[in-house]
Amino acid sequence: MDSAAQVRERFKEYASVIDAELWRVFEPRLSLPMYGHLAYFMGFLDEDLQPVTRYGGKRFRSSLCLMFADWYGAREAGVPVALSVELFHNFTLMHDDIFDGDTYRRGQKTVWNVWGTNNAINSGDAQSLFANQVVANAYREGVLENAQVQCYLNEQYLRVLEGQYIDFELTNASLGDTKANDDIYMNMIQCKTADLISAAAKGAGLAADVSDKEAQALHNFGQQLGIAYQICDDTVSVWASSEATGKRARGDILEKKKTLPVLYAYEQLSTDEKERLLALYNAEGELDERGAREVVALLDSVDTYGEMKRRIDEYAAAAKGAADALSLSVAQKDMLKSIVDMLLPDAKKL
Amino acid sequence: MDSAAQVRERFKEYASVIDAELWRVFEPRLSLPMYGHLAYFMGFLDEDLQPVTRYGGKRFRSSLCLMFADWYGAREAGVPVALSVELFHNFTLMHDDIFDGDTYRRGQKTVWNVWGTNNAINSGDAQSLFANQVVANAYREGVLENAQVQCYLNEQYLRVLEGQYIDFELTNASLGDTKANDDIYMNMIQCKTADLISAAAKGAGLAADVSDKEAQALHNFGQQLGIAYQICDDTVSVWASSEATGKRARGDILEKKKTLPVLYAYEQLSTDEKERLLALYNAEGELDERGAREVVALLDSVDTYGEMKRRIDEYAAAAKGAADALSLSVAQKDMLKSIVDMLLPDAKKL
Repeated sequence: MDSAAQVRERFKEYASVIDAELWRVFEPRLSLPMYGHLAYFMGFLDEDLQPVTRYGGKRFRSSLCLMFADWYGAREAGVPVALSVELFHNFTLMHDDIFDGDTYRRGQKTVWNVWGTNNAINSGDAQSLFANQVVANAYREGVLENAQVQCYLNEQYLRVLEGQYIDFELTNASLGDTKANDDIYMNMIQCKTADLISAAAKGAGLAADVSDKEAQALHNFGQQLGIAYQICDDTVSVWASSEATGKRARGDILEKKKTLPVLYAYEQLSTDEKERLLALYNAEGELDERGAREVVALLDSVDTYGEMKRRIDEYAAAAKGAADALSLSVAQKDMLKSIVDMLLPDAKKL
Repeated sequence: MDSAAQVRERFKEYASVIDAELWRVFEPRLSLPMYGHLAYFMGFLDEDLQPVTRYGGKRFRSSLCLMFADWYGAREAGVPVALSVELFHNFTLMHDDIFDGDTYRRGQKTVWNVWGTNNAINSGDAQSLFANQVVANAYREGVLENAQVQCYLNEQYLRVLEGQYIDFELTNASLGDTKANDDIYMNMIQCKTADLISAAAKGAGLAADVSDKEAQALHNFGQQLGIAYQICDDTVSVWASSEATGKRARGDILEKKKTLPVLYAYEQLSTDEKERLLALYNAEGELDERGAREVVALLDSVDTYGEMKRRIDEYAAAAKGAADALSLSVAQKDMLKSIVDMLLPDAKKL
């Protein structure tokens, strides 16, 4: 079995473990609908709060965490960390859906779209508490001992919220503003995306009491992978077909999001082209198909796709380098490298 | 010096301690405005995020916590617990202001009113994380040892959010619905108000490793005091003058809130009077002065004020009984009883 197949099989098992643990968190409390909202969002209940089996997310971060914990021989201590990261991740998505006004996610209505904004805020608040409560319970039960773990996780979680704040600033700024550029975008995704993947990787390491050097390499792996993943995701939204993604083509452009491809291209364009891009992005409402195609043509005129691919490759290589620095077997490192490749499809070859 | 004066002096000192600790949480992070929003809400910064000294709340819950911790000889372990409760309390207020659409609190604009709803959600989320982070840091530093404390606090915090959920249900129900009655209201304030005061009292006890019996009495003290306090607050809103409270008279009635006085009276009224109260409460928008006075007259017709006073006295007596059950000196118990009396003014004698 090759590394990629091994990863797929492992992650399928881990997702089941995480789902069972998540259910154990929610199930005893389902008499109150507030907790039902959380179980609904995670894919365990339908809109009427009746049990269903439905896709509730990949459980990627928590699976990565469990895999590292297994490799360091600390499965039991890793479970609450994985669970915490998964709970926190989904908590941020619940509130993100409010911020963005998104009505659907994973093919189902978002929490605010079913139960209103106030419930989505308040129930999300409960999910955030669970991200700490599962760790606190593990300490009390003696399953987890390193007192650094919870402090570390919370610092990473704060970074994710910092990333969200920077995202607000970026969203409110106009293209060309000092608050909307390549550097700020990179800072935003480092906080909002990469720091949570680092939490999963280094969190597992800390639970297993690995050396500082190992913990640092785990952090690096999460950072580089997270940044590569987010740039790739943004690239896919511009250049991949809707058949490949199941989402509409050029979605981010239609919504006039200031993702990296747009910010990069803006800096490269001539004065006239800058003005044209600005005119398209400063108009009222969403872009139409024609406008979106014109934006992509402007991006292509300065080979933005090539630049994005170059950056993704650079961060992917750095992630693989971080994997090589870990005290793990060659087979384990190969699995990590497969994860990097699996997470980073080429948008034009999808 | 009598007990009441002693309490006032002590609480003033405690509020300073808490303010200094709160500032230590926020100050190193103020380069990011997200954290500035929190420092603003707590009274440390103005709207331009410049330092000010302004009223940011009574710090009642955290002061109560510190006092118990002092009495049990566990001041150092009590500080992170007090801080956590204060941070969590103010986090809930930030999100409550969104729920209620309140534009001002403590004489200053609410966070959403200055920086928008999305920032108020996201910055509030950060404050909730701090409520756990201060405790996690205390464990790491060895200041706090009992691993039960954080689990207990989080369970109480979840109860507060459960209370908020029940509040949503109560707000959305009509008078006379099965989801709007005396019992549900009592359940709501027990979760939303009393469980956080219990967290302050019993949290201090757990930090000091008191006996289970003592912890239970601390819990009871917080519960009874919290319930009495909330009923008193609701009573004040109906019957106290605006000169006495600094808020408009009959505020809750003008806003057609289904607080206990209204729910109680509704059940006592004759069929015709019920219909009149329903008609007033089911009309569009706020009540006018005349309508509010008519509602209060209906409440008075079944001596609602007397019933509220009877209940407040009952819970106050129970709180004092719980104080008597504690392993504390007579002088300390007298101080607790003074706190009960100070928190529960007679609405008509204010």
